Amino acid sequence: MVPHLITALNGPIDELEQRVLDSMPAIERWFRLEWMEHTPPFYSAATVRNAGFKLASVSTSLHPDGWHNLTPEMLSLAVQAAMVAIEKICPTAHNLLIVPKNGHHSQYYLSNLARLQRIFRRGGLHVRIGSIDPAIKNSTRFDLTDGQHVTLEPALRMAHRIGLHNFDPCTILLNNDLQSGIPGILEDIHDQYLLPPLHAGWATRRKSRHFKCYEDLAKRLSKLLGIDPWLIKPMFEPCSQVIPTESIDALRAKVDSVMTRLRRKYKEYDIKEKPFVVVKFDHDGHDLPGCITVRDVKDLSELTGWVKHLSEDHKPAAHDFFVQEGLLTHERMSDSVAEPVIYMMDRYVVGGFYRVLLGGQRDESLNGPKSGYVPLAFDHSTHLPQPGIKTEASAPNRFYMYGVVGRLAMLAASYELEATDPDAVNDA
Amino acid sequence: MVPHLITALNGPIDELEQRVLDSMPAIERWFRLEWMEHTPPFYSAATVRNAGFKLASVSTSLHPDGWHNLTPEMLSLAVQAAMVAIEKICPTAHNLLIVPKNGHHSQYYLSNLARLQRIFRRGGLHVRIGSIDPAIKNSTRFDLTDGQHVTLEPALRMAHRIGLHNFDPCTILLNNDLQSGIPGILEDIHDQYLLPPLHAGWATRRKSRHFKCYEDLAKRLSKLLGIDPWLIKPMFEPCSQVIPTESIDALRAKVDSVMTRLRRKYKEYDIKEKPFVVVKFDHDGHDLPGCITVRDVKDLSELTGWVKHLSEDHKPAAHDFFVQEGLLTHERMSDSVAEPVIYMMDRYVVGGFYRVLLGGQRDESLNGPKSGYVPLAFDHSTHLPQPGIKTEASAPNRFYMYGVVGRLAMLAASYELEATDPDAVNDA
Repeated sequence: MVPHLITALNGPIDELEQRVLDSMPAIERWFRLEWMEHTPPFYSAATVRNAGFKLASVSTSLHPDGWHNLTPEMLSLAVQAAMVAIEKICPTAHNLLIVPKNGHHSQYYLSNLARLQRIFRRGGLHVRIGSIDPAIKNSTRFDLTDGQHVTLEPALRMAHRIGLHNFDPCTILLNNDLQSGIPGILEDIHDQYLLPPLHAGWATRRKSRHFKCYEDLAKRLSKLLGIDPWLIKPMFEPCSQVIPTESIDALRAKVDSVMTRLRRKYKEYDIKEKPFVVVKFDHDGHDLPGCITVRDVKDLSELTGWVKHLSEDHKPAAHDFFVQEGLLTHERMSDSVAEPVIYMMDRYVVGGFYRVLLGGQRDESLNGPKSGYVPLAFDHSTHLPQPGIKTEASAPNRFYMYGVVGRLAMLAASYELEATDPDAVNDA
Repeated sequence: MVPHLITALNGPIDELEQRVLDSMPAIERWFRLEWMEHTPPFYSAATVRNAGFKLASVSTSLHPDGWHNLTPEMLSLAVQAAMVAIEKICPTAHNLLIVPKNGHHSQYYLSNLARLQRIFRRGGLHVRIGSIDPAIKNSTRFDLTDGQHVTLEPALRMAHRIGLHNFDPCTILLNNDLQSGIPGILEDIHDQYLLPPLHAGWATRRKSRHFKCYEDLAKRLSKLLGIDPWLIKPMFEPCSQVIPTESIDALRAKVDSVMTRLRRKYKEYDIKEKPFVVVKFDHDGHDLPGCITVRDVKDLSELTGWVKHLSEDHKPAAHDFFVQEGLLTHERMSDSVAEPVIYMMDRYVVGGFYRVLLGGQRDESLNGPKSGYVPLAFDHSTHLPQPGIKTEASAPNRFYMYGVVGRLAMLAASYELEATDPDAVNDA
């Protein structure tokens, strides 16, 4: 199950990869020291884009689904890392309750839940799935095409705890990113571990805040590596409070600003590709449209139409935008473009897979309905490379480097969650 | 590389395995709680014997070699566990020095060193091998048949540290079980982490002490599982100070005593096999002969000869014996008998393999020159079984249960090291 991937090996990324491999002990030590001061998210997934000349994370999920796309070899790593995480947070744990997304009953999502349940069961816990979807009124069994099944049970609230009928968990694992806001049933839970915390949901998260943390860390890691930080981070600019029916000049200006900086970088590195930016909402909301790609000034009219299309009754946060450098993907599988998604449990990279857009363009977003998923090749010769040994151009699967960028995104999420923690003690 | 193993599935072990699988969350929680109070050995390997009607650890190494016998899939688990261990002990680590056995330059042992070096390099450390063998006077390169090589460099002592020329490690990993006693170069090292500590070497260790700790823990775990502790532990009796040239009556009496108890158990469980015991030295010394198997009273004359054969100038400790219940092995590969060896790094089972005796008898010791090694099948359906699901008789590879017994041996070693720690604060 090793996908055949074609990675463009032109210019800087070869040097970058070699630099990363040669600096492995320094990189690992840097992460170890960071984890002495900062707590990793319980689990996370980073989408990485390899543009051929640079490699960076473009989004970080703190409630990842898709766990079933990991290969069986990776399952043992996930179980071991889950054991580490549980030991640290709640060594006395018996019972774990997984809270899934509301209304997601696709085979894809249910297979993800089955896999998560399996990981934590194998880590030695009793695991059940407690839905907070009002539509789940009774224990409901869903059969999966592979013969497995998943049972969703209605979560019950009792004083400062939630649980199921005859099942009192000490730890609640959210696999629901709270795009619709924080439901009452999850508020004021003081007697249980809620992982990740509520402020890791999209009611609180902002892409601009995450990428500011990522940028600061990328600069520090780049200094350690002696490289231009741009090679591992996307440029971005936030744009607040664009009132749809009035003016989008502010947004236009931000797009222009990122484009100008980007053109300068492309010139500096003699990159012949055409730069582009991606405009996203600064948070993810279940009722918001996806992102749009702006390649040219003429796309700005499309942008105008898109912004105007927003209905008046969206919450104010829906008018905050996030303008991010577009990253091409140079990785392909047959005729399709591919982007790696790196899965992490606690501070450990436990696997990953390629999200593949069938017949897609290199600058398209791959998180859409045409996406396919292919487990990331788990070739140990490249996953865990030997420092000092020259990278072979014939080894296109750069798992170690992807794992470094993935962990950089995870560490950024750790800083981000510290900054937004409502219970944080202000020791300034 | 999945060995075809034939495991006798008669009687109690099927029930035992089912009990172990059904109790998985309770077992994992028990271990988690134990690790809150006790420190696991840095690394360890337990030799397990599956007698068909019972399953127990028969020896525990705290300086395991044979790491190269683990499959590549297991390598990632070992690397992840090594990262956990290093983070815990010395997160600021740059450099690790491995101290190998003296005078062992076989392909087997050198391949083991190469693999250990690879594991810790991939965990992000600079790793070199510092020999304390006086014969290694200069940096010496050994080529391996697989194209790798290993370089042994002479370890240097400086005040309270050891290192190499231009290499100052913060952590010293002993892969030398100090059978010849503690060399001066390793004494009084106060500025570095020495792992495992000196008292984990055979200058201090005694099998009787280890198995007393194992027995106590096996009793507690058996209570949790609701089983007869005998099903997971070997009977034993220590026998001190047998002066070879005088009398071996005391040893005879111990053999008799274990045999009598064993016959009673065999009767209770209606086991038709012939019981036997194994007589070993209570510690491992490089100049001591191996163990002997006593099947019958007539073997006692052989024992007499064996004891007499000990030369007068052996240290007194060499006259301490350890009489252990002999455990048959019912596992076979083709015509050969096999015993699983479980490898652990910190508190995690990271893999294992079958030690196979080509053409051997079921009651022979497998740690001899005729042994072969086969990586333990890493079948996830059995390695990480689902609790509540009936074990298939067609799945002969009982990795989870072996992992439980392996970890029991590791936990026993943790208790053993606490009891013999010269720096322990006596808080009685």
